[in-house]
Amino acid sequence: MKNTIFTFTDHSPKYKQIYEKFKSFIEQGDLLTNEKLPSIRQLADSLHVSRNTTLMAYEQLVAEGYIRGEGRQGYFVNELEPLISQEAFILPHPKQTESVKPPVVNFRSDAVDQTNFPLKIWRRIANQVLTLPDSYRYGEPFGEACLREQISTYLFQSRGVKTNSDAIIIGSSTQQMLVYLGQILKEEFQSIIVEDPGYDGAREAFQFHRFMFEMLPVYETGADFSQIEQMKSRLIYITPSHQSPIGVSMSIQQRQMLIHWVNKMCGYIIEDDYDSEFRYTQKPFPALASIDSARVIYLGNFSKSFLPGIRLTYMVLPESVLHRYKKYYSHFESPTSLFSQLTMAKFMELGEWNRHVKRMRLVYKRKMLHLVSELKKQFGQNISVIGEQSGLYLLIKLHLDRTEEWLIKRAFSYGVKVCPTSLYFIKNKSDYPIIKLGFSHLSCDEIELGVGLLKKAWIS
Amino acid sequence: MKNTIFTFTDHSPKYKQIYEKFKSFIEQGDLLTNEKLPSIRQLADSLHVSRNTTLMAYEQLVAEGYIRGEGRQGYFVNELEPLISQEAFILPHPKQTESVKPPVVNFRSDAVDQTNFPLKIWRRIANQVLTLPDSYRYGEPFGEACLREQISTYLFQSRGVKTNSDAIIIGSSTQQMLVYLGQILKEEFQSIIVEDPGYDGAREAFQFHRFMFEMLPVYETGADFSQIEQMKSRLIYITPSHQSPIGVSMSIQQRQMLIHWVNKMCGYIIEDDYDSEFRYTQKPFPALASIDSARVIYLGNFSKSFLPGIRLTYMVLPESVLHRYKKYYSHFESPTSLFSQLTMAKFMELGEWNRHVKRMRLVYKRKMLHLVSELKKQFGQNISVIGEQSGLYLLIKLHLDRTEEWLIKRAFSYGVKVCPTSLYFIKNKSDYPIIKLGFSHLSCDEIELGVGLLKKAWIS
Repeated sequence: MKNTIFTFTDHSPKYKQIYEKFKSFIEQGDLLTNEKLPSIRQLADSLHVSRNTTLMAYEQLVAEGYIRGEGRQGYFVNELEPLISQEAFILPHPKQTESVKPPVVNFRSDAVDQTNFPLKIWRRIANQVLTLPDSYRYGEPFGEACLREQISTYLFQSRGVKTNSDAIIIGSSTQQMLVYLGQILKEEFQSIIVEDPGYDGAREAFQFHRFMFEMLPVYETGADFSQIEQMKSRLIYITPSHQSPIGVSMSIQQRQMLIHWVNKMCGYIIEDDYDSEFRYTQKPFPALASIDSARVIYLGNFSKSFLPGIRLTYMVLPESVLHRYKKYYSHFESPTSLFSQLTMAKFMELGEWNRHVKRMRLVYKRKMLHLVSELKKQFGQNISVIGEQSGLYLLIKLHLDRTEEWLIKRAFSYGVKVCPTSLYFIKNKSDYPIIKLGFSHLSCDEIELGVGLLKKAWIS
Repeated sequence: MKNTIFTFTDHSPKYKQIYEKFKSFIEQGDLLTNEKLPSIRQLADSLHVSRNTTLMAYEQLVAEGYIRGEGRQGYFVNELEPLISQEAFILPHPKQTESVKPPVVNFRSDAVDQTNFPLKIWRRIANQVLTLPDSYRYGEPFGEACLREQISTYLFQSRGVKTNSDAIIIGSSTQQMLVYLGQILKEEFQSIIVEDPGYDGAREAFQFHRFMFEMLPVYETGADFSQIEQMKSRLIYITPSHQSPIGVSMSIQQRQMLIHWVNKMCGYIIEDDYDSEFRYTQKPFPALASIDSARVIYLGNFSKSFLPGIRLTYMVLPESVLHRYKKYYSHFESPTSLFSQLTMAKFMELGEWNRHVKRMRLVYKRKMLHLVSELKKQFGQNISVIGEQSGLYLLIKLHLDRTEEWLIKRAFSYGVKVCPTSLYFIKNKSDYPIIKLGFSHLSCDEIELGVGLLKKAWIS
């Protein structure tokens, strides 16, 4: 070994520094293959450290294969191939985008109201959950039994869906569930009917399994089922209670027709009941699955009604799918936070969930009414408002000779962020541009300010 | 309408009870198609409720399509197809299994130590996170930037992996990440090399995409790479730092050989570094990705090192995969709890994560040493202990003429739960039965008691 000056720093244990140094000697060829290392004792003496320190360093080098001990003969350098140093993980850091001023009013649709969140009670339960021994393990593959029980009760009371907790599967997002479910369905089905316009995220999840699409046109007056008998698919993904994004609800006649169709076809209806809790003009419609659930896969989630960040979704599977699903995924870990599940179960058990939904329905109703009245006041006949009966957003169709892109950019330059809808449309394009306004997290004052600014941006 | 006696209950609003009643009249044919309903006023008078109540009930029925309003003519029943009532969701409740006494000592490997969990600081941060406006939205599709930054720093300091946060993807479980990743890799690869024995959960995730398997035999002395040049696969899934389940670590020569192989083949190494934090005899080995990461997909998670229920996993993608991955999943929602992410980011930023890992390494080391010494004391030459240098479990090979099944059942009848290992083995079967003992959540007293009971169950 070359006579190297070895200086210790204070940043890490000495044995580690010795190990690092020898490792780099070997890698850089300063120590050659089969070269003998100084003994534990020699090295300790020359570096003024304890023998235990040099022993630990050598042991680490032995364990990783850099050197070998040959009993009383001492330690020798192992053969090592030269390495070309590569640093492929190091990507250029993204350019600092110019600091864009945040919008004054953001009509985003991916947030919920913070002011009325039941912070105190949720925290109290969450803190209790962390003290349970049950929180220090992996969760059940299909979700915790206590939460599935609560959801089963809720679905019966609020959505008319009769199920028991064993038919409920808990997941982390609608898309994750559809990807997992699609794996089972693709054995039997190659194509699926989707709404046009419809939720793009669901289409992405079906594309994961290369399902082909047939389109069910949806208008402000409702879905047009007239061509369904001519379609080849026996599978349909649909949002009956609050069509995404148009906002219409399916009538009982349409629901019955669809149930008859699916039973005749031996197919499945995937009913996405994503925000059914918030219906303002009447009480929430019963779910399609409440009529006849033999061929309905029911999807629900807590993103809109509680918190999107909690990532809690569930589906109710009819028996024919349930067995296959459970068999296939029996060795898969649950993708859903155990804490969110245990906390939500207790929250529901205490009746807090029903209280929360009831309170939020009033809060959101007030905001929706305010938004509609402001829009009518400012825009009059220049717009039609679509889907104001339910949900946390509405659509406005602008009777203006402008593109969606122009409207969004123009609004942004006036400090207002609004959302496009073109991504939801496939073939069934709209005659006029349609803009989506989410309001759930805004105050009534902000709504008023935002609509005023939109008027200035678009009309004047 | 027939003269029906209508009695209200106290359980729900009156308008809802009227709505329910009329709905069932229509569904059961007590009210016929096109039959005229009593007017709002007549009904209100006869039921002694306000007109607003009857109006609300009728509006709900109109909205759902059961009846129609014809202006001053009044309300009429719509046509409705007869329904065959089906209750397919209602599965028989699972039989109450006979009350099995819980084991006295459970050597499960799916739990972590609760006693040393940093409950106070974690709660404090979690409670703060809930007050941030940032918590009331959907999360970033590939994980929160603040957490990715922290992981990138941690990986460099502790695992030698140089990356920047943009190359990190956050997911909810290793299997969920492998399912998503597999979708990208299957475009280019049809088969994959897996360790035998190896982690069954990873195999399940690869089977999701119908990858074919080639086996890399792993022994107590390490993996046998002698046949790798003859294999067809250019993809390998491997656990280099702590082989699952055998517990061996790959030497630097094996690591270099593998890096050379993958570069030559233009394939990828999927390095699952699932519990590298807990190495007791030396300092943790640097990751394979620290040598050359151009063709290494690095997977890490917080399940073993922190909490399995938190469902936080991450992967570092080399540039060639990263772009495809991000493009494919740009419209997918994150499957991972936003709160877990924001809380963990802060926890790491405050240095609490490093403190936790350091503390737990000592805690688990003490337990591991105690378990090994108890096993040697009780069983002597009847067993070999495998993999005691790291991790939260060890394996024992029993030099007895018994089956795994017998050992597990026999132990259970003595009040001790132990885990099988046969599910990890594919072709490379073991000569003697191997039992897995997880100890992370047990106290030293429980470990002692458990080993003593195992001795009684198996030997005497």
